[in-house]
Amino acid sequence: MRIGFIGLGAMGAPMAARLVAAGHEVHGFDLQAGAVAALVALGGHAAASARAAATGADLLWLMVVNGEQAQSVLFGAGGAGGEGGAAAALRPGALVVAACTQAPAQASALAARVAAAGLVMLDAPVSGGVAGAKAAALTIMCAGPDAAMATARPVFEVLAKRIFHVGTEAGLGSTAKMINQLLCGVHIAAAAEAMHVAERAGVPLATMHEIISVSAGNSWMWGDRGPRMMQDDPPVTSAVDIFVKDLGIVLDQGRRVRQGLPLASAAMQMFLAASGLGHGAADDSQVIRAYRAMNGKGAK
Amino acid sequence: MRIGFIGLGAMGAPMAARLVAAGHEVHGFDLQAGAVAALVALGGHAAASARAAATGADLLWLMVVNGEQAQSVLFGAGGAGGEGGAAAALRPGALVVAACTQAPAQASALAARVAAAGLVMLDAPVSGGVAGAKAAALTIMCAGPDAAMATARPVFEVLAKRIFHVGTEAGLGSTAKMINQLLCGVHIAAAAEAMHVAERAGVPLATMHEIISVSAGNSWMWGDRGPRMMQDDPPVTSAVDIFVKDLGIVLDQGRRVRQGLPLASAAMQMFLAASGLGHGAADDSQVIRAYRAMNGKGAK
Repeated sequence: MRIGFIGLGAMGAPMAARLVAAGHEVHGFDLQAGAVAALVALGGHAAASARAAATGADLLWLMVVNGEQAQSVLFGAGGAGGEGGAAAALRPGALVVAACTQAPAQASALAARVAAAGLVMLDAPVSGGVAGAKAAALTIMCAGPDAAMATARPVFEVLAKRIFHVGTEAGLGSTAKMINQLLCGVHIAAAAEAMHVAERAGVPLATMHEIISVSAGNSWMWGDRGPRMMQDDPPVTSAVDIFVKDLGIVLDQGRRVRQGLPLASAAMQMFLAASGLGHGAADDSQVIRAYRAMNGKGAK
Repeated sequence: MRIGFIGLGAMGAPMAARLVAAGHEVHGFDLQAGAVAALVALGGHAAASARAAATGADLLWLMVVNGEQAQSVLFGAGGAGGEGGAAAALRPGALVVAACTQAPAQASALAARVAAAGLVMLDAPVSGGVAGAKAAALTIMCAGPDAAMATARPVFEVLAKRIFHVGTEAGLGSTAKMINQLLCGVHIAAAAEAMHVAERAGVPLATMHEIISVSAGNSWMWGDRGPRMMQDDPPVTSAVDIFVKDLGIVLDQGRRVRQGLPLASAAMQMFLAASGLGHGAADDSQVIRAYRAMNGKGAK
């Protein structure tokens, strides 16, 4: 299949490389010329613009940062850098895979605009991060028509370990991803709250971590972020401000559809406070610093 | 070892039976005469009162409902039923295992009173529920002096798969248990919040459950309670009001030591609302009913 691939960043680069290795003809574009050159070295093709990547493609994969960028790539003016206007270069009926993280309402609006242009969009956010991209072990939560899903499936299977067809209506894929982010954000903040109670009370943190790991209070985030909460300045796997953004999407959507979300809201306040304290670029485990600032960290 | 065992309820009965089977001389007492008779049928001994169970015991196991009952068993007047005053019947230096769930401050106060009576207390709450008790697969979070811990360990090993010595100071065991309950309560409410977003948005719930089960948003509670959130009237494994109690302990302790706990507090409001709606005796997964009452349940 001829694939246009837009966005060769930390996740996009290994994904595009996998598609090349699987025998697809991949035309890659990124604002960083070095990223395009790296793809060419692996057997891919350089595109000088998003529009060029889209020309002649059966499938255009959007691995950009957010919904605004996806919209700009497809329908932007395509100024000096020529990075926009890719939709007009696609053949009628071509498939657009919006794999970026965006709000459900954005995904729905984008799909409508894509359909009006005579194209078909799959709302297909991914999870699994850079590690999942490198290992071809992503999870894809895809919403869109059955026929488009069938066309995309062989491509998905190159990249993902798990593929879920959430529904036919665009927006449902992004909703599923958003719900995962809701749980991730609440669980990280809850882990910090719990760890903070332990440290103030004088419970040895390594013991506490082990107890919860074998108890009903366990979560994936407790296992992953808990150890980094015990470190003063852990390496940054994902930053505090990423959850300010992701829980922001959750709460914006709640506001849009009139749905109160007390836990997501409480978690958001802690990430906001951590960011306000100057820790926005710190590892998200360091939301625990907001608890320490708020309550003190001394022994009970 | 000669063991006095107080409280032969859903958890206590299988635990006492295991101790009998392991060769210990168990003198059991419960306000329900039938529970005592069942223990005797298995080779245990009937005690007519808590005081009688304590007489001559090396170790007195308190498997009562809460800290108030533990205090009453040890230091109560021992009126008509003769159920109190067990501490005075124990030999000097005997071991009291407070295995009930109680507030950290209660456990500390009880340990001080036990020490003043010339006895030694282990603050040793358990988790794992009735299933864990039946399978001898409990987790014990124990705080108390090393020597007492060494004495109790062979008894613990009959009942538990995991034994944690959290520290030497009474209260730390109950703190560890309380922290697990904090996470359990927050994770159940978060699961309900997430499931409620999915159902309002029209995401198929079984698909949503499967996606999260393989994603970073997963938790033990999502796996256990999630499926029951999809049922209209699931069997009651643990009731909404149990979390009103357990998160109450968490928030009372936070108030005592001046520690704001925004997520535990938000979760508590949802359990309170579910109870206020008349669902206090329903399965705790039904905290989702509070979300439906608050936000409506129709499709977005």
